[in-house]
Amino acid sequence: MLRPIDCTAAGELRVLDQTMLPREEHYRTLATVAEVAEAIRQLRVRGAPLIGITAAFGVTLAARQPGATLADVLRACDELEATRPTAVNLPWALARMRQAARASGPEGNGLHPALLREAHAIWDQDKAMCQAIGEAGLPLLPAGATVMTICNAGILATGGIGTALGPVYLAHQRHGNVNVVACETRPLLQGSRLTAWELTRADVPVTVITDGMAASRLRHGGVTCVIVGADRIARNGDTANKIGTYGLALAARAHGVPFYVAAPRSTYDPAAATGAGIPIEERRPEEVQSFAGSQVAAPRASVWNPAFDVTPADLITGFLTDAGLLTAWELGALR
Amino acid sequence: MLRPIDCTAAGELRVLDQTMLPREEHYRTLATVAEVAEAIRQLRVRGAPLIGITAAFGVTLAARQPGATLADVLRACDELEATRPTAVNLPWALARMRQAARASGPEGNGLHPALLREAHAIWDQDKAMCQAIGEAGLPLLPAGATVMTICNAGILATGGIGTALGPVYLAHQRHGNVNVVACETRPLLQGSRLTAWELTRADVPVTVITDGMAASRLRHGGVTCVIVGADRIARNGDTANKIGTYGLALAARAHGVPFYVAAPRSTYDPAAATGAGIPIEERRPEEVQSFAGSQVAAPRASVWNPAFDVTPADLITGFLTDAGLLTAWELGALR
Repeated sequence: MLRPIDCTAAGELRVLDQTMLPREEHYRTLATVAEVAEAIRQLRVRGAPLIGITAAFGVTLAARQPGATLADVLRACDELEATRPTAVNLPWALARMRQAARASGPEGNGLHPALLREAHAIWDQDKAMCQAIGEAGLPLLPAGATVMTICNAGILATGGIGTALGPVYLAHQRHGNVNVVACETRPLLQGSRLTAWELTRADVPVTVITDGMAASRLRHGGVTCVIVGADRIARNGDTANKIGTYGLALAARAHGVPFYVAAPRSTYDPAAATGAGIPIEERRPEEVQSFAGSQVAAPRASVWNPAFDVTPADLITGFLTDAGLLTAWELGALR
Repeated sequence: MLRPIDCTAAGELRVLDQTMLPREEHYRTLATVAEVAEAIRQLRVRGAPLIGITAAFGVTLAARQPGATLADVLRACDELEATRPTAVNLPWALARMRQAARASGPEGNGLHPALLREAHAIWDQDKAMCQAIGEAGLPLLPAGATVMTICNAGILATGGIGTALGPVYLAHQRHGNVNVVACETRPLLQGSRLTAWELTRADVPVTVITDGMAASRLRHGGVTCVIVGADRIARNGDTANKIGTYGLALAARAHGVPFYVAAPRSTYDPAAATGAGIPIEERRPEEVQSFAGSQVAAPRASVWNPAFDVTPADLITGFLTDAGLLTAWELGALR
C-alpha cells in the first residue's frame, strides 16, 4: 500500500511530497525538526491525522543526537505545534510526545527510544482507527454505492486507509462496486490532485467535479451519501473541515442525502464548546490569486482565504468513528 | 467605458479577447462568420447578452460582400446559433436578424445596411436594458452595501453596464460606497479573471473567494444580497446560470440573504415550462482537469463538466429586469 510517511532505519523521516502530486510521486527525507515544520507548513504533508503522526516523528529527530535533553524535545514540540492552528490532532499528538519525554526521565540514552516508541504507537493507533472507521462506514455502502467527498481524507491524510475514504476502500475490497465523486477543493485542489490520484492508483472509479458543481450533482441523483473528514470536532458536534464542506452539507440536506463526518476520536476537542471556539487558519491570498505560477485573479482585487469552515452539528447525520457510527451526543459521552 | 465589442468603420467586428484577461487587454478583429463562431465557442466573447449582440454583428459579416444573398445570411444565422446551446439570447437575437434579412428583400444592396441597423438596434436595446436593470436594483444597495455574485454578468457580458453588476455600477456612481464579493467561478474563473478585473478597473472594491467559501462568507455576515445573471429563465422562473449558482442560492437561503436574478426580458424563455426544459451545455473535461495550462487532476480520473445549473424559482427572491423588480409570475405575465 501507498505510504505517505515512513521512518527509515537511520531514524529519519521519509515523506511523500504531496505538493508535487499528481505530476510526480517524489519522496523527501527529513532529518531535522525545522525540515519537518517546513513540510507541515508548506502542506508537503497534510491531513489532520497525518500531521499529528508526522509531528510525533518530528519530535524524535530532536532526541537523535547524543546529549539531547528534555528541554530540546519540549522546544521541538512547541516549534511543531505552531505550524498549523486548526487540526486538533497536532496538539493531541504533541501532548502525548511531551508526556512520553517527561516519563522517560530528564535526558540520557532512554529519551530517543522512548519517543520513537510513542511515535510508532500513535501511528499504529491511527492505522487501527482508520480500519475501525472503515468498518463503521462499510454498511452504508452497498454494491453500486456512490460516495461524494471533498478535500482528501484518505491514505494520503492518515497513517492507514483514511477516514472518509476508509469505508470506500473496504467496500472496494469486499464487493468492488463503489464509486466516488471528488470535489476538486479549491484553492489547493486536494480533491482532484490527491483524492483522485490515490483512488485511481487503487482502481476505485472516481469522477472529479468543481466545488460549484456539488449541488447540481446531488440533485442529479444517485449519490448514496457524503462522507468528509474533520480537522476538529467541537463538544456540540460542530465540525471544522476543509473550506467548502459547509456548503456541501447544505446541499446534501437540501437533497435529503445523508452527510457523515469520519474521524478518529482524537479529532474531538471537548475544550471547544461549539464551532465558534475553533481557530480557523487564514492562508496567503496567493493561493487564490494564482495557480501553478500564473496569475488568475485581477491584480488589484482583495482576497479572503480561510482554509477551513465549520459545519453545524444539525447538518451532520452521524460521525463515523473508531468506536462506530455515533451521534454528536454519543461522541461527546465517549470521552 | 470599457467596450468588450465594437463595430469598426469598415463594418468588421472588434472584440476584447476575454480568454486573455486579466493578463492582457487584447482586442481581435473578426472579419468572417467563421471567426465570430470560433470566438463565441472558445469563450473569447461570452455572457448571454453579449453573445446575442456579437452573433447579430456576426450575421452582418455574411452580407458585406457585393452579391451576398438571403441564403448566405440564413446560413450564417444557423452556423452562429449552433455555437452554444444554453443561453436563450443567442437564438433570440438571431431570430431578429433572420426577420430583418427577410424584410429587406431577397438580396441586393439593402441587405447589409438593414442587418447592420438591426444589430445596432439589438446592441442599443441591450445597453438600455442594462441601465434599466441597474435602476431596478439600485434601491437594494444603500451606502455600505455588499453584493455577492458569481461568474461575470457585468460590462464584459453585455452591451452596457451589465446585468448583475448594473446596480453595483449605479450605486458606485451615486454614493460610492458599495463592495462586491466575487466567487471565482471554476472551471473558467470568470469571477476572478473578469468580474474582479472590470470592477477594479472601475475602482469598485472587490474581494475574490473560491466557490467553496461562499457559504462561509454568507454566514460571516454583512452580505446585503446576492445578485447573479441568467442564461435562460423558464416559464415558472427556474433559472439556468453558470454552474455554482444553485449552491450559492441554497447557501443564501440558509442565511436569509435575498437572492436576485438580473436579466433583460430577452432571457425569459416561455417555451421552457420549467428548468428541466433548458438544455445544459457540457464542456470538455480538460477545463476541470487542468488549471491555467497545467494538469491538476489525476490523469485516470473521470470528469463531469456541466457549464450551467438550474436554480429553482422558489430560491429566487426576485428578478431585476428592464421592467423593474418582478416576481417570477409577473415576469411571465409581461411577455
